Parts: sequence; structure tokens; C-alpha cells
Amino acid sequence: MEGRCIMRVVKSVAEMAEVSRELRASGKTVGFVPTMGYLHAGHISLVKAARKDCGSVVLSIFVNPAQFGQGEDLGTYPRNLAGDVEKCRMADVDVVFAPEAAEMYPAGYATYVTVEGISDRLCGASRPGHFRGVATVVTRLFNIVRPHRAYFGQKDFQQTVVIKRLVRDLMLDVEVVTVPTVREPDGLAMSSRNSYLSPAERMASVQIYRSLASARSLRESGETRAGVLTQKVRENLSHEPMFKAEYVELVDADTLLPVQSADGRCVIVLAVRLGRTRLIDNMPL
Amino acid sequence: MEGRCIMRVVKSVAEMAEVSRELRASGKTVGFVPTMGYLHAGHISLVKAARKDCGSVVLSIFVNPAQFGQGEDLGTYPRNLAGDVEKCRMADVDVVFAPEAAEMYPAGYATYVTVEGISDRLCGASRPGHFRGVATVVTRLFNIVRPHRAYFGQKDFQQTVVIKRLVRDLMLDVEVVTVPTVREPDGLAMSSRNSYLSPAERMASVQIYRSLASARSLRESGETRAGVLTQKVRENLSHEPMFKAEYVELVDADTLLPVQSADGRCVIVLAVRLGRTRLIDNMPL
Repeated sequence: MEGRCIMRVVKSVAEMAEVSRELRASGKTVGFVPTMGYLHAGHISLVKAARKDCGSVVLSIFVNPAQFGQGEDLGTYPRNLAGDVEKCRMADVDVVFAPEAAEMYPAGYATYVTVEGISDRLCGASRPGHFRGVATVVTRLFNIVRPHRAYFGQKDFQQTVVIKRLVRDLMLDVEVVTVPTVREPDGLAMSSRNSYLSPAERMASVQIYRSLASARSLRESGETRAGVLTQKVRENLSHEPMFKAEYVELVDADTLLPVQSADGRCVIVLAVRLGRTRLIDNMPL
Repeated sequence: MEGRCIMRVVKSVAEMAEVSRELRASGKTVGFVPTMGYLHAGHISLVKAARKDCGSVVLSIFVNPAQFGQGEDLGTYPRNLAGDVEKCRMADVDVVFAPEAAEMYPAGYATYVTVEGISDRLCGASRPGHFRGVATVVTRLFNIVRPHRAYFGQKDFQQTVVIKRLVRDLMLDVEVVTVPTVREPDGLAMSSRNSYLSPAERMASVQIYRSLASARSLRESGETRAGVLTQKVRENLSHEPMFKAEYVELVDADTLLPVQSADGRCVIVLAVRLGRTRLIDNMPL
């Protein structure tokens, strides 16, 4: 019987490393989708991209304590392992790797990876240590799973830039693939944190995408000035009094540094607070 | 003709990665000896250990700026690439990897690895950032060279503990081998920095080994109290007024934490300044 028929759920780091060795030894390309679980259509689009490219697909589910700061939502982050496993089965995942925190950070664990500069801006400014936690867990996951390719959502844009930098700097033997953001019918970017929104907040949240779309329209009509484009976004957000904008910036797609003009490859990135929920989104221009 | 007959000297990261891929693909075990060059008999003993275990031996020569602090000896650290290459040829090394700093830290390089806790004590206390530089360059070198085994001298004892922790935490697929310290006939541990010593300092330096040997004798006569054993070392060092002891401690061999009693696997570690030169040594008890 072919291995692809039976999905494995692996809890231990040692077993996951062994399963990956077997997959590689059998000549299969390993595609890897790291997640924090509570899977939605955005995650499934990552699985589909991996499924298309790779002979085997490993999806990890790990709510990584190291990337949450004090007072953030580690304790309340939504979890549903049984539901996630079922979704993975439906999406034809080969291996679900779902370690406990004590497996990922055993007693005596002491090693952390930082990507300086790009980790400190935007989300990093309001979430100190966040990208250190991301870089650390991704390095460890990559070395456990040893994938040929790893798939990340464009929605977490800064994360993709940090991980690409990390992979290049540490010479990790992984190709990082960014997959376009999947949106709800009304435009809201899929996120596990959308489950935090009250019905009224969920209604208001549509304005995030609209504000980005309005900047894109403005860009398509010829406007390139960063100040004008970001002001358009802010204006749109301000129509909704529930929003508190944390940042709205036009940045270079590779360096994340602010640009004055939307000439090259650049992205409008934003973070807003909507009640107690923090949401991020972005739009390449 | 067999590859082992012709030693290669590689300067570029990309070429080194390619050479390693070829070595592995040919089924050879890759042994790796990372050094800062100015090779002495201690380094050659690492090569011999690698030569004995492995089908191919890669030795790197890189004076790593990231592990030197402000005001330290990065600029004056002794270098002799031509002499080192000749010594490697004599010692039957297969590949010398000697990158420039701009190859190891290209423009935009931003990723650093820290091993918390054990990096902060002993040498880390007087050399902040030192082990961050070591952990970073070793991670990068391991991922370029992809060795099966890597060889480090016991002389840099804290370094071996930091690297073992790093390898375990980041799941690097390398076996770390520690090789006993090689000493001059009078007991001084081999070090490239011994070249800094004036004739008078070189004469005085023998007291470092004697002080450690006196503690070992005391231990063999039944003394286990840490305070008494380290005091014995300090007393011996104080016979030589040129010394300034930076630390003398009895520590657990795995955690580097101070121990009260020399019961388990423990090591006396010390750092002294002798004029402008900083020397370290240690003795397992």
C-alpha cells in the first residue's frame, strides 16, 4: 500500500526526524507547511501549493510560545487539533507534526536565532521578540523536517521576509515559497485570529481590505507618492471608528524599508487593532 | 587519480557548498575542523582525529570578526595562510576552506545565533558577544560544509559546551567531537595567541598548567571541596606576579554551572591575563 493513503500524526521530534529521513531516502520531495493550527482556507492553499510541487507534504501544528510576548494571546489562541487533523486528511497531507511545547523546547533549551534590522520594524516594533521566536522555531522545524520546500502565506508578509533572510544567511537548504493571501468573500484576509472578532467587529473588518484596495486603485490611476497612498489607506480606515491603526507603510518588498515612491517592487503593509484583536494585512502595489 | 592526492583550497561559500555536496554524494564521511588559522600542533591533532574517523577532511581558516569584541585583538590576531596551507597539505587535509569576511558576512547579512545562559558566564562575562559570534559562524560553517563530524579542542572548553548545546537545540545533523588539549613540553596549552607572549611572559606562562596540575594532585589525594581546589590554583598563580586571574572556577562539565564539590564530571576552568595577552586553560578532575 502506498504511504500517501495513510496520514501519520507525529508528536515527537525524534520520530518526525526519522519519518523525514525515510521520505527523503525514498526519493520524495518534501514540502513543508508550518502552521499554528486552527486551519482555514489560507492554510489549505499552502497545502495545495505543496501538494502540487512535492511528493510528500508535512504540515506542522505548533502554537509557538517563543513568538508571543507578555500580555499577548498565547493562552487564548484558538486550538482544534482533532478538527485540524481531519482537514489535513481531506487535503491529502502525508504527515501532521503536532509536538507539545516540551518537545520543541525541552529542559535546558537555550538557543535562539535573531534576524536583526528587519525584525525590529512594523510588527516587530509593537511585538518585541516576536520574530526572534519565529526565526528560532522555523530554524528548528526546518532542521527536524528537512524539507526541500517550505510554504508561507503572503498575509504574514514581514514573516516571509525574515524567513527568506534567515534561510539565506544560515545557508539552510530549503526553498521558501510565498503563497498569495486567501480572503473571505468580502475581502478580509483569512486568519485564525478572525475568530476573536465580535459580529460588529467582523462587519467593520471589511474596511481593512477596502482601504488597501483603494490605495491600489489610486496607484493604478498613476499616483506613486508613498504619503498620498498611505494617507488614502488611513482615511479609509478612519471611516470605521472601531479601528486603531498601529502602522500603515509603503515598504520595499525585499528590505521592508519605507520607500518614498511606489516605483519598484513595493507593498503597503498595515496592522490595526479592532477591539482586543490585532489584525495585519498587506497589498503589493 | 584519487581526490585525496590533491588538496583543494576553496575561497567561496558557493564552491565550498558544492565541494561538500560532491564529497557526500561520493559516499565519503566528511570530517570538519573549523579554525582561525595560524595552525599549531593542537589543530593538527584535530586533523588527525578527523583523518582517522572520516573519508574526507575539510579544515576552515577564518578569523571571525563577529566573535571579537571592541578593543580585542581582531586586527593583530596572527595570520599565515601560506604556512597554514602547507601544514594542511602535510597533514593530509582534503579541502582548506579560507573565505574572506565578505564571503562569510555578505552585504545585508543579519542573522545571529545565541546560546543563552552558558554564553554569559566565564569567558562570556568578560567577552560579551563572543559566543554569539562563535555560535553564528559555526552554524553557518556547518550549513556550508555539511560535515558528519566536527572536531574542537578541549582547550576552548566553554566553546565546546556552547556548540554541543547549539547542535542539540537547532537539531544540526553533526556529531561534535572534543579532542584533548595538546600542550608544549612544559605544559602550556597550545594556542595561536601564545605568539603574543614575550620571552619573560612565556617563561611565566608555565605556571598556568602547574596550577591546574596542583589542583588535580590535590583532588587525587581525596580533596573534593571546590573552594579548596580553586584556592590551590589561585595560590599557584599568585606565585607569578605577572598574572592577573580573570576567573578560576570548578564547574559541571555539561552545564558549566559552578559546583561545590568535585564529585561528578567536572572541570577546573580559568582565564588569566599575562601582560596584554589573555590565556585560557582547563583541567577535567
